[in-house]
Amino acid sequence: MTTEDKETRSVGTVFPQVVRFAEPLTLASGVMLHDYQLVYETYGTLNAHKSNAILICHALSGSHHVAGHYAEDPRAVGWWDNMVGPGKPLDTERFFVVGVNNLGGCHGSTGPSSVNPATGRPYGSHFPFVTVEDWVKTQARLADHLGIDCFAAVMGGSLGGMQALQWSISYPHRLRHALVIAAAPSLSAQNIGFNEVARQAITTDPDFHGGDFYAHGVVPERGLRLARMLGHITYLSDDAMMAKFGRELLGGAPHFSLEVEFEIESYLRYQGKKFSERFDANTYLIMTKALDYFDPARQTGGNLAAALAGVTAQYLVLSFTTDWRFSPARSQEIVQGLLANRVPVSYAEIESNQGHDAFLMENHDYFSVMSAYLERVAQECAP
Amino acid sequence: MTTEDKETRSVGTVFPQVVRFAEPLTLASGVMLHDYQLVYETYGTLNAHKSNAILICHALSGSHHVAGHYAEDPRAVGWWDNMVGPGKPLDTERFFVVGVNNLGGCHGSTGPSSVNPATGRPYGSHFPFVTVEDWVKTQARLADHLGIDCFAAVMGGSLGGMQALQWSISYPHRLRHALVIAAAPSLSAQNIGFNEVARQAITTDPDFHGGDFYAHGVVPERGLRLARMLGHITYLSDDAMMAKFGRELLGGAPHFSLEVEFEIESYLRYQGKKFSERFDANTYLIMTKALDYFDPARQTGGNLAAALAGVTAQYLVLSFTTDWRFSPARSQEIVQGLLANRVPVSYAEIESNQGHDAFLMENHDYFSVMSAYLERVAQECAP
Repeated sequence: MTTEDKETRSVGTVFPQVVRFAEPLTLASGVMLHDYQLVYETYGTLNAHKSNAILICHALSGSHHVAGHYAEDPRAVGWWDNMVGPGKPLDTERFFVVGVNNLGGCHGSTGPSSVNPATGRPYGSHFPFVTVEDWVKTQARLADHLGIDCFAAVMGGSLGGMQALQWSISYPHRLRHALVIAAAPSLSAQNIGFNEVARQAITTDPDFHGGDFYAHGVVPERGLRLARMLGHITYLSDDAMMAKFGRELLGGAPHFSLEVEFEIESYLRYQGKKFSERFDANTYLIMTKALDYFDPARQTGGNLAAALAGVTAQYLVLSFTTDWRFSPARSQEIVQGLLANRVPVSYAEIESNQGHDAFLMENHDYFSVMSAYLERVAQECAP
Repeated sequence: MTTEDKETRSVGTVFPQVVRFAEPLTLASGVMLHDYQLVYETYGTLNAHKSNAILICHALSGSHHVAGHYAEDPRAVGWWDNMVGPGKPLDTERFFVVGVNNLGGCHGSTGPSSVNPATGRPYGSHFPFVTVEDWVKTQARLADHLGIDCFAAVMGGSLGGMQALQWSISYPHRLRHALVIAAAPSLSAQNIGFNEVARQAITTDPDFHGGDFYAHGVVPERGLRLARMLGHITYLSDDAMMAKFGRELLGGAPHFSLEVEFEIESYLRYQGKKFSERFDANTYLIMTKALDYFDPARQTGGNLAAALAGVTAQYLVLSFTTDWRFSPARSQEIVQGLLANRVPVSYAEIESNQGHDAFLMENHDYFSVMSAYLERVAQECAP
């Protein structure tokens, strides 16, 4: 594709919108939020029947900024811009696409770094933990606000895929399709272990101040850096890392120092630093906790099929061969749970060496499956 | 096996010995150590021909204390006590076994926490980085001290296996067999990445003080804890973790707090804390750097077979099916490199769900292979 093609296939300049909800929200924890806002973006046009809306749920570090760019910062391209745009698999000439920053986030929706109206100071440690179910509830309120009774599809990768799955459980009649990509029906003990190391890195950073670091004019950037470095290792496959970074020593020989010697060290330090400058530490804790808690089968004695008994959506479940964070076997658990309920489900295991990150990458097979499935969804939307 | 059997099959009470080397040692880094000591233990009896000695090399957090227990602390059992003892696969009634704490360690051999005779203070940041080649060189000096010209075998798991491999390269005529267990011919980029996160955890801990924390009366225990927590995740397989810890919430429901909620969190925190109380942070850095640097094929343009061209030992190479830290494919690289040189090598991939930790665990197939191979080694030792 030429640069011009890429340009013309972008949704172009976009702008975030904010909606404030004054109706109190009771969270899964029992905590009540009296007032909160969500920031969101939309691309494309809602049709007359309001039948062509697609909600995109973001993963751990994502946001509402899914596609296009901002007028004031042309380089701030949305995180799924390769997937979403005119003529792209999620075609914004056919769909009305909604991206939303989750509650507890740090990109404009109410979260730990927001000012608590009750105190006039950032929530910090007082911001409640939220669950995937809570997010879905707030996203349903956003749908109400936009006048969308039923989404053509709810979709997402990783933690975003978990939200799509939860949507189909919480609001079976408010979506026709759920696209669950590179997700899992729950975290494994290993997944939780990695999250716990990340959390301990943050909470034991002396600059964390029990979550109320805002008042001290510091951020626990050491902890955030470590959390992100670790995360990046789990997002890539061993092979992809080796292919991308190798193990050649800078200068060809050991330096016998703690400075950067291997390219992977440089990459991880850079990614960690960049992340620590833009992401909120409390949001990171909230996101990882939501991941740990997610387990629809907890309510049904560990029986996922039983947890999915009430769903009415149709499903596309996708996994990637070298994803060891949420392996294909975990996606297959979801497929089995759906099949046990005789629910229509399409499943594909996409060949990729990119590990978990594959869900964000352009890949012929992946994009072909997405295009074909969304073509079907689009045809159903025709008024 | 009954308790009595276990008791009688122990080497019993053991005691560490210390040898001081006054002959200067030039390290791979070019740094010269004028004086250093190694602490070691021996079990069994060296025969008249001194042909039955086996050297055991330890991994990242191991030590010279391989088998038996100390009179003053009967619970301090050696780290490979299940493998080494009378009637065990490494039979101390037939072999003279040597365990040694590596240079740079923190169990009695000269290392960063030792007093630098030049200053009267702990070496700290002034202790040089060492390589696997350096360790092998010091171990050869220990062999000289013990009057051992040629080991019947040099063996170890993980980083210990790398030392066994390096022995066969550095001193081809000083060992008859190399037992290379759960090792790799070099770290992958992913392996280095995990090491780098661990190092960053330690070095960014404010209590690290650039490595000279001893003078401040503190230890970077936050960093060490994180490093060890992360390490433990990579030592176990995903399946073994799930089988051992599951993902049940304590009390059956989320607590919505940062306290321990899952068993894996409790395990990792406990292991991290225990480790941070007994291990030296600078030694951890030195060990991970030695791992990163290890790469015999660096001298031969990446050609491992060429790096192994001069070896004369016979080999047993073992890997474990669910070891994702040093996967069977990495062991097979070693085997291929040896076969290319027409060197006698036995290889087995042992079925185990224990991940990398399998090399420390009792396992029927593993112990059978070890027993059979060492039986052959023992028969060759007969005077």
